[in-house]
Amino acid sequence: MYRTHHCGELRVSDVGKTVTLSGWVQKARDLGGMTFVDLRDRYGITQLVFNMETNEGLCKRARELGREFVIQIVGAVAERSNKNNKIETGDIEILVDELNVLNAAKLPPFTIEDDTDGGDELRMKYRYLDIRRRPVRNNLVLRHKLAFEVRRYMDTQGFIEVETPVLIKSTPEGARDFIVPSRMNQGQFYALPQSPQVFKQLLMVGGMDRYFQIVKCFRDEDLRADRQPEFTQIDCEMSFVEQEDIINTFEGLTKHLFKEVRKIELGGDFPRMSYADAITYYGSDKPDIRFDMRFVELTNDVKGNNFSVLDNAEYVVGIAAPESSEYTRKQLDQLTEFVKKPQIGATGLIYIKVNTDGTCKSSVDKYYTPDDLARIAKKMNAKSGDLILILAGNKAKTQSAMCELRLEMGSQLGLRDKNIFAPLWVVDFPLLEWDEDSKRFFAMHHPFTSPKIEDFELLKSDPANVRANAYDLVINGVEIGGGSIRIHNDELQQQMFDVLGFTREEAESQFGFLMNAFKYGAPPHGGVAFGFDRLVSMFAGLDSIRDVIAFPKNNAGKDVMIDSPSFIDKKQLDELGIGIVK
Amino acid sequence: MYRTHHCGELRVSDVGKTVTLSGWVQKARDLGGMTFVDLRDRYGITQLVFNMETNEGLCKRARELGREFVIQIVGAVAERSNKNNKIETGDIEILVDELNVLNAAKLPPFTIEDDTDGGDELRMKYRYLDIRRRPVRNNLVLRHKLAFEVRRYMDTQGFIEVETPVLIKSTPEGARDFIVPSRMNQGQFYALPQSPQVFKQLLMVGGMDRYFQIVKCFRDEDLRADRQPEFTQIDCEMSFVEQEDIINTFEGLTKHLFKEVRKIELGGDFPRMSYADAITYYGSDKPDIRFDMRFVELTNDVKGNNFSVLDNAEYVVGIAAPESSEYTRKQLDQLTEFVKKPQIGATGLIYIKVNTDGTCKSSVDKYYTPDDLARIAKKMNAKSGDLILILAGNKAKTQSAMCELRLEMGSQLGLRDKNIFAPLWVVDFPLLEWDEDSKRFFAMHHPFTSPKIEDFELLKSDPANVRANAYDLVINGVEIGGGSIRIHNDELQQQMFDVLGFTREEAESQFGFLMNAFKYGAPPHGGVAFGFDRLVSMFAGLDSIRDVIAFPKNNAGKDVMIDSPSFIDKKQLDELGIGIVK
Repeated sequence: MYRTHHCGELRVSDVGKTVTLSGWVQKARDLGGMTFVDLRDRYGITQLVFNMETNEGLCKRARELGREFVIQIVGAVAERSNKNNKIETGDIEILVDELNVLNAAKLPPFTIEDDTDGGDELRMKYRYLDIRRRPVRNNLVLRHKLAFEVRRYMDTQGFIEVETPVLIKSTPEGARDFIVPSRMNQGQFYALPQSPQVFKQLLMVGGMDRYFQIVKCFRDEDLRADRQPEFTQIDCEMSFVEQEDIINTFEGLTKHLFKEVRKIELGGDFPRMSYADAITYYGSDKPDIRFDMRFVELTNDVKGNNFSVLDNAEYVVGIAAPESSEYTRKQLDQLTEFVKKPQIGATGLIYIKVNTDGTCKSSVDKYYTPDDLARIAKKMNAKSGDLILILAGNKAKTQSAMCELRLEMGSQLGLRDKNIFAPLWVVDFPLLEWDEDSKRFFAMHHPFTSPKIEDFELLKSDPANVRANAYDLVINGVEIGGGSIRIHNDELQQQMFDVLGFTREEAESQFGFLMNAFKYGAPPHGGVAFGFDRLVSMFAGLDSIRDVIAFPKNNAGKDVMIDSPSFIDKKQLDELGIGIVK
Repeated sequence: MYRTHHCGELRVSDVGKTVTLSGWVQKARDLGGMTFVDLRDRYGITQLVFNMETNEGLCKRARELGREFVIQIVGAVAERSNKNNKIETGDIEILVDELNVLNAAKLPPFTIEDDTDGGDELRMKYRYLDIRRRPVRNNLVLRHKLAFEVRRYMDTQGFIEVETPVLIKSTPEGARDFIVPSRMNQGQFYALPQSPQVFKQLLMVGGMDRYFQIVKCFRDEDLRADRQPEFTQIDCEMSFVEQEDIINTFEGLTKHLFKEVRKIELGGDFPRMSYADAITYYGSDKPDIRFDMRFVELTNDVKGNNFSVLDNAEYVVGIAAPESSEYTRKQLDQLTEFVKKPQIGATGLIYIKVNTDGTCKSSVDKYYTPDDLARIAKKMNAKSGDLILILAGNKAKTQSAMCELRLEMGSQLGLRDKNIFAPLWVVDFPLLEWDEDSKRFFAMHHPFTSPKIEDFELLKSDPANVRANAYDLVINGVEIGGGSIRIHNDELQQQMFDVLGFTREEAESQFGFLMNAFKYGAPPHGGVAFGFDRLVSMFAGLDSIRDVIAFPKNNAGKDVMIDSPSFIDKKQLDELGIGIVK
């Protein structure tokens, strides 16, 4: 037997016991006649003591141990004179009698410590060593706990986890598929699923009633900072439900997870906000409502003062940042630089300081009288000490830029505490999005999303204003997931395809197989998909999903640890009947 | 709200309640002034009553309902006069006041009944309708329950479920990989994992200590009856363990599953049998030990009677089938035909009837005296009424043929009850297998499997007789899973590669990346993988894994429901830089 206990287990109550431990040498310290070794495993660290006086040979061997050697020891548990209250085993140490080196170790390329000296690239290349570090390991343990609690909750709610296939069919709509050449059917290809959408709807047609799955999905997109080619969803679908039933169920799941995993009770119903309000007041369909600082539109309040920038602006919007009127010139310049960054895209920033002495001071004093400024401040509902920040220009772009500025101010003012969680349902999404390039409507969610009954009539007369039975769960400005009630009625589905500009033939060739299933008795149904990686990273207090994935890929889609993707044998390609085109 | 209750829920205690139900029309019967509709959902069937006298209009509408229409009704729960004790809701019925057709349905291509009139192909094409049938649905529910209980058990044992990547690297050893062309790294390919073997070993190097995962794996093999290109494993790995620790843990898991899901207590320790004994006594490394009927070797007991077939045979083996001495000529002819089938491959069958009157009667009376037969019967330890069946020929082929014959006799004699479960650990597998074609040894399990310490010395002198720390769990003759203790020592690993005939360069190019990880302090470790599909099918009492998979593929690797694999746009191929080679 390699161990009687693990390295996080022994306490003062175990003093006197003879124990066997195994683990990695975290570090060793020689202090005169003693050698202390910190022995580490997944569960903790236990201090080992070797004594030059009582067992010189053993102590000398201990002095030869390098970092990350794998050892096994036998010894007696003793109470420490010098207790360490930073670790749970800090009251005891092991007086070692036997030492057995199970495996030597080369010096690791970075320190296996909470704060490591290893850079990102190095840590990814040696991910198996990175995982030995507590923060990374804790993320994986957290991920396990969350997945387990999702399953436990869904099981109690009568959901059945069904595995849907990974080798499916490529569809031209949506993002780019990863494809898999078929050897048995040469010239043909499988595709990896971007989501199990079609299969979960078929499970509803099949009467499964309540389906869920924690499932890998795949998208061959150009990777941005927080995207991975393979990612994990909590995917769900329910039959005989309306939007309210789904929102209640997944609000319940979310509360369960926060309670069980973070010990946080999210009391009361989650607030809801219409998509229209979210855009109007936060410039985003995923507002961070941990703090207020809502947009106030000023388009008609700032015109007529011969300031052409605002006179000619399609849209002018302000926020009032609390307790910031003392911002220095330098800070204000930095904010201006911030909004002018290409990814934010504003042309400039106007500020009005609402000073604590009652005066206003602005960057546009040349055009606006103190009374003008006071009037704007009043419109903004600004309080003494506020800093009003104003952006102007094209409406959509300015809303988006102001959204970023608001978040930046929230961060600067410490209003975005990672230990506070503000969930929000964003509802009443538009059903359709107009695409200027192709001069047609696209489904904002997907073509099977149901319009709201009360907006049915608008489908022909004013499609842009049809609202969908679609909803997103947003927490702290992060879209955790979303879903919709699906169309289950043939005629409405056909009408939807008409609006989307599909010919009957196109609809049939792209979606015929699901539409055919709908002819055999489809129940009303709807569902949700949560981004599991993002959920875990939020629970872990991280900004990136990469560190909650055991073996992530880099921005070039590469796994630098196993060196994948890689070249393969021509023989393999020949068997598949494919070739590389230069 | 679409329903207040589901269709399996209402009882006599609910009589008088007004309820709303939704579901599918299972069938409708018009009896004079009444129409009865069986309403079905996932949870059960509830009888609806429409009355021509009290509500003619409604009843007429009910008479227009077709099978599989999706309807919603409101009505009062009433006690039935004519109770149906075959269904849980059989004591009540609903007197319907309101009927709402939620969706019409075309007549399904086969009956949605427990025993359907649909053939396999048709059921696969309309799998979403097949899933409405109770037996198929029950299999999926069972699968969910088993997966959940696996996770529950593993969680209590301190295992962490870690998701390993699906887009990995192709390796030339082992079965054929499915490959995925990379768009961002043209000319390069990912591969889909045949198992997470490498990653779970890396997780052990990373100190995760106890890992598990219920995970999809992929093999591009020519499909046999019970193979799928994508299949699911319960994959596990543990650190600081010996074979005994792993066997205990997974015996615990198996007992837990039988207890929780089948309500069967598998008491005591599972029996163990060496690979050598399994082959000697059952001609298979996965013996079905629900019944005895062990092989008895007769090679030296049947020679010298001028019967050239046996005189010249490398190997002669018999089994004694109990209470079968009355087998007719026809039955014996059928057994002979059975063993002569190409997939069994015997050239003939010899029998000796040990009659209840004490005499023996055989198919080789010409060569053997009654005393000879009695002597053989004694060697066989045959009892009065037994039928001794004898095969002869090449040893390995004859063992394999006799294994099939033994199983056939077990089936004919009713000794293979699907509700009796006989688990068995097969241990002490050979480390190596000699491949006559390539004149080299191959690893029987994989090249990282550890030999038994006591056999280390044989690695150079007699590799064929080195036993591995490898073990399989067999239940009722089905291999549920297997695993091994891995090599964690550099030198031993190198020695293993030498035996396998790898040059240093080959070892480095194929396994260098894992070997490199081993240099940084690999703990002793080992693991197991269970075939989850097979486990579920055994729990469901099925012979095939196909019916425990929601959307399986056929023997040509095709999903006939979604028509996949399929041809794709040339544009997609161009983006990937690949082409189809005619």
